[in-house]
Amino acid sequence: MTSFRVGLLGHGTVGSAFDTLLHERADAVEQTVGRRPELSGVLTRSRGDFEEILAASDLIVELIGGLELAREYVLRALRAGRHVVTANKQVLSQHGDELFAAAREAGVELRFEAAVGGVVPVIRVIHETLAGAHVERVHGIVNGTTNFILTEMTRTGASYAEALADAQRLGFAEADPSEDVSGKDAAAKMAILARLAFGAAVELDGVTYEGIEHVTADDIAYARELGLSLKLVGTAERVDGGLSVRVHPVFLYGGHPLAPVDGSFNAVTVESPAITEITLSGPGAGGSQTASAVLGDVVSAMLPPAVPPSAAQPVELVSDVESAFYLHLEVADRPGVLAQIAEILGLQGVSVKSVVQKGLGPDARLTIVVHPVRESRFLAAVGLIGRLDFLRVPPRWIRVIEEVFE
Amino acid sequence: MTSFRVGLLGHGTVGSAFDTLLHERADAVEQTVGRRPELSGVLTRSRGDFEEILAASDLIVELIGGLELAREYVLRALRAGRHVVTANKQVLSQHGDELFAAAREAGVELRFEAAVGGVVPVIRVIHETLAGAHVERVHGIVNGTTNFILTEMTRTGASYAEALADAQRLGFAEADPSEDVSGKDAAAKMAILARLAFGAAVELDGVTYEGIEHVTADDIAYARELGLSLKLVGTAERVDGGLSVRVHPVFLYGGHPLAPVDGSFNAVTVESPAITEITLSGPGAGGSQTASAVLGDVVSAMLPPAVPPSAAQPVELVSDVESAFYLHLEVADRPGVLAQIAEILGLQGVSVKSVVQKGLGPDARLTIVVHPVRESRFLAAVGLIGRLDFLRVPPRWIRVIEEVFE
Repeated sequence: MTSFRVGLLGHGTVGSAFDTLLHERADAVEQTVGRRPELSGVLTRSRGDFEEILAASDLIVELIGGLELAREYVLRALRAGRHVVTANKQVLSQHGDELFAAAREAGVELRFEAAVGGVVPVIRVIHETLAGAHVERVHGIVNGTTNFILTEMTRTGASYAEALADAQRLGFAEADPSEDVSGKDAAAKMAILARLAFGAAVELDGVTYEGIEHVTADDIAYARELGLSLKLVGTAERVDGGLSVRVHPVFLYGGHPLAPVDGSFNAVTVESPAITEITLSGPGAGGSQTASAVLGDVVSAMLPPAVPPSAAQPVELVSDVESAFYLHLEVADRPGVLAQIAEILGLQGVSVKSVVQKGLGPDARLTIVVHPVRESRFLAAVGLIGRLDFLRVPPRWIRVIEEVFE
Repeated sequence: MTSFRVGLLGHGTVGSAFDTLLHERADAVEQTVGRRPELSGVLTRSRGDFEEILAASDLIVELIGGLELAREYVLRALRAGRHVVTANKQVLSQHGDELFAAAREAGVELRFEAAVGGVVPVIRVIHETLAGAHVERVHGIVNGTTNFILTEMTRTGASYAEALADAQRLGFAEADPSEDVSGKDAAAKMAILARLAFGAAVELDGVTYEGIEHVTADDIAYARELGLSLKLVGTAERVDGGLSVRVHPVFLYGGHPLAPVDGSFNAVTVESPAITEITLSGPGAGGSQTASAVLGDVVSAMLPPAVPPSAAQPVELVSDVESAFYLHLEVADRPGVLAQIAEILGLQGVSVKSVVQKGLGPDARLTIVVHPVRESRFLAAVGLIGRLDFLRVPPRWIRVIEEVFE
């Protein structure tokens, strides 16, 4: 019985957890698969030689993170005919075309379950279970830090800054949280999911994203009265023969399967006509969970591939998509205000679903939810409304995702 | 390029949907897998010959349902060296040992994603994603009919009989709903999940089950005040070196991932130390969704198996497991009542988590939630409490599942 030799690049939190797990589970894997996985070498900044490890390995696990060095190692490993398993969402979302092409040409596997969705096996479900299905749309809460912050703001009424500080204190946000709170981390993951779900050549620079830094506790409180909850949601969907991939703060109705996903959890909803929809959820990944996802990929690479890889298709990325919107206006309390706003919305083809008026005199506010409409039309209407003299502050608006089954 | 010949047994709702889908997706499957799936024959009560279809097929899809005839056809197909895909939970849960042994001996695949979980790919996730993981516990809402009825009772305050009638009118329950409402359908599915998750020889007769026929709207309303929601939950878990597989109405705290699963949806939570937990949810299956799951299995059978099958292990089934409980008592309103009840609970080692007293005089009620305790101890305490003279009606109790992350 020959062993299956695994070369490990990186020995930080995830790398050392993987090292431990591989030793613990080697017997069980050998029993299942018929070959025993063994560590053939470890590369860190201070020890190991990449070429030596490569020569001694059947598969390379890349856990060094970052962009350029990781890209170089992964490419060299693939071109040398080695399978690669990585948890590196940056390199996959920014050099995906190059990496997947290299894997196809060499006839080896490039696996990356640990890059997206925490413990949730979303990569495998989209790639294998839905291989025969036509995926229409993927919605995901794919960043645990921002979901934790928004949940705290909702639960306690805290401001964004307070909730971020709490998240940092509790270890749910990093000292420099900008990748997470700007939506960039989620955008990278959505690029990876879109490539997989639609077989399309999507990279990070094709993803529109917006973060949660400007969300206010007031918006959350007002919208809650309408049964809406705020999440940072990534969406990848077919639109007019092209694709739209984007990340925004959005309001969800209570019936949406992502609405109850709180704290640092991740969740992904996949919609397809044949299966209606599937939701997968679980905690965001810590070191040991990520290591477990990496080991799962290693085991899969030891076996014949379930679904042969196919080349990604070029695709048109659509930016002006339809969405429902929440619109918050602070207005002077005088007759005719609502009529003027309604007229502007109507002229732009924006249809109102609900209006709630709150407060009196200098506190008067309108909270409006409109039916799905092309973004450009809605923004045109908001631009016109923003010029009205009875507005006390600029309009605020947030996208709304309607319930799947209304 | 040779075709892959699929023989179809049964042409009812699911069978005809599968027939249609196979024709629609044949091109896409051929592109992915390299072979074209084609229908080699259809067996119904009035047409087709089983032996002829078997001889002309690489794989048999069994959709006739029922027990004896399905068992015979599946066994004959497996023994003739044909892969089999089935959606038949009865035959899998009652003759699993025999069928899986036949598949192993013949070296062919027996696949059954459509038998459990509606559109949710729980079979594949447990079998493949978690192949390397040690599964500790599976909780599932695996019967859409009962979940629909309990959701209606919760939402509208309707009685069980009223909600059942609604479900029948809307097509969510059959004219004879006994398999569903008794918990037997869920028990069959949990036997299948337990076999898969634990590699254990579990059949339906090893599963304890209880239905929802005796649930009252009052229990739901009282427990709701404590933040609990009622579901029919199947549980398969490791206990003291053995297994417990059971189906009961249980209360869930709001934070449990199954608590927000409403209407006819299905959902399964898998707990494992390495991954903490994963939840999969989606609508219960209709004909087209089931057909889609069957086609997914057919496509997988056309490819090399991802995880080789291994023989199921005999297992000790444990019946006296630990659980938290809700206990509802209608009592005479006089001093010393709570003290006596607390004393009995304490003597049996049952520890109280919360007590709510409601109503006065002839309306006095106690709603008690106790911490997890061995069932036999709790039932002994309830037996003693039931004999107290100040009780106006017999005690009512329902199991409670605690939050995973408290």
